[in-house]
Amino acid sequence: MTTILKLGGSVVTDKDRRETVDDAALANAADAIAEADTEGLVVVHGGGSFGHPNAADRNVSATEGTTDAADVRAIHRAMGELLTTVTDELGAAGVPAVPVRPLSAGYRTVAGDVELSTETIAMMLEEGFVPILHGDVFATAGRGATIVSGDELVVALAAELDAERIGVCSTVPGVLDDEGDVVPTIERYAEAETVLGGSGSTDVTGGMAAKVESLLDATAPAYVFGLEDIGPFLSGAEAGTRIGPSP
Amino acid sequence: MTTILKLGGSVVTDKDRRETVDDAALANAADAIAEADTEGLVVVHGGGSFGHPNAADRNVSATEGTTDAADVRAIHRAMGELLTTVTDELGAAGVPAVPVRPLSAGYRTVAGDVELSTETIAMMLEEGFVPILHGDVFATAGRGATIVSGDELVVALAAELDAERIGVCSTVPGVLDDEGDVVPTIERYAEAETVLGGSGSTDVTGGMAAKVESLLDATAPAYVFGLEDIGPFLSGAEAGTRIGPSP
Repeated sequence: MTTILKLGGSVVTDKDRRETVDDAALANAADAIAEADTEGLVVVHGGGSFGHPNAADRNVSATEGTTDAADVRAIHRAMGELLTTVTDELGAAGVPAVPVRPLSAGYRTVAGDVELSTETIAMMLEEGFVPILHGDVFATAGRGATIVSGDELVVALAAELDAERIGVCSTVPGVLDDEGDVVPTIERYAEAETVLGGSGSTDVTGGMAAKVESLLDATAPAYVFGLEDIGPFLSGAEAGTRIGPSP
Repeated sequence: MTTILKLGGSVVTDKDRRETVDDAALANAADAIAEADTEGLVVVHGGGSFGHPNAADRNVSATEGTTDAADVRAIHRAMGELLTTVTDELGAAGVPAVPVRPLSAGYRTVAGDVELSTETIAMMLEEGFVPILHGDVFATAGRGATIVSGDELVVALAAELDAERIGVCSTVPGVLDDEGDVVPTIERYAEAETVLGGSGSTDVTGGMAAKVESLLDATAPAYVFGLEDIGPFLSGAEAGTRIGPSP
């Protein structure tokens, strides 16, 4: 059984201090993952204060490309430092973590689709390793290189590896309604719109509306939860908000 | 037209000092590459004093695998430091160099064959970038992870990308005969055996016999030459020893 676990960039980094890891949060996440059965697990982390400022400085986004190799190297280097820290921390906690760099493993088509070559990741899983990926800069047809987000990679990995469950560890305990309570399930985008107040509230929810929309397209049910629910999620329990049909 | 250029590990590193770059040699190589037309160029560098001692410490080779993720991380980290140095130096010289990590892009089958996913590299070339790869640790069916050499990657890249020429920049000006003169062409292994004295002299020739044998299997003519011949090779001239049929 393959499981994809996303560690949000704002969970593992200090979003207000450039290129700074949130050591306590990362240690908690590493311990929770190490205590679980990690067979078939793939981890993806976001960019947080490593990826976003470096991409913004260079005006590179998922749609705005760069043809300057120095931009590619700079964004990729920053993300590589975070990847090394995350991978080493997971390794120290006892997870057989090995790094995988999306820039080396995929590209974006002219239509904007993410093509990720996952045979290598499948071989790592077969050999008992836990591949760790991250949001990255990505060669892109006709645009040089753009940004690929951790969320895009999660959806691509789930489809290619035929994953059974997706977990998205966020800074909130799930998708919250107007009262701040966790919505247990969202099976259609219409429900999310009611709860999230449409795309106008994207900033307020930290991009939650967009995240819900993309996870509804995933090939496996996705759970959005907080740091404390990594353990329950990996043990197979329901956690936070389930997005998509019942498994 | 696609060209694969290998920079030997013993060219770009100081083989006698662990994890030490040969700054002067690397600067020369970078300048020669920057002066050439780099459209369609892929560069691969060897491990030198970064890769070999780290692999040997952990008893990992092309055939001896490791199932310990810490071994994978350690060997890959050392090679990543050399890759960053090589890529930044090429970038500083004006080459649109972007890093590609073989661990993320391929694996070895149970039969020992190298499977490298090259769609991403082809996309980088299309977008005008010069991908830089390196000998690395590689997920391997049934054996955890083994070492993939720069030479193996060169042969795999040439086949997958339908390259027209391969250049192997070595510490010697070509394959040398008994008198120390450069042999201009080797078209069949029988000729190499005469010149190199068979596999018994592998140590003396620094693995040249094995290199010649693998390059004879390549899908494009390969030239083995010294640092001073990078420019002539990239400009389309014959350089050092040609291995394989006339182009």
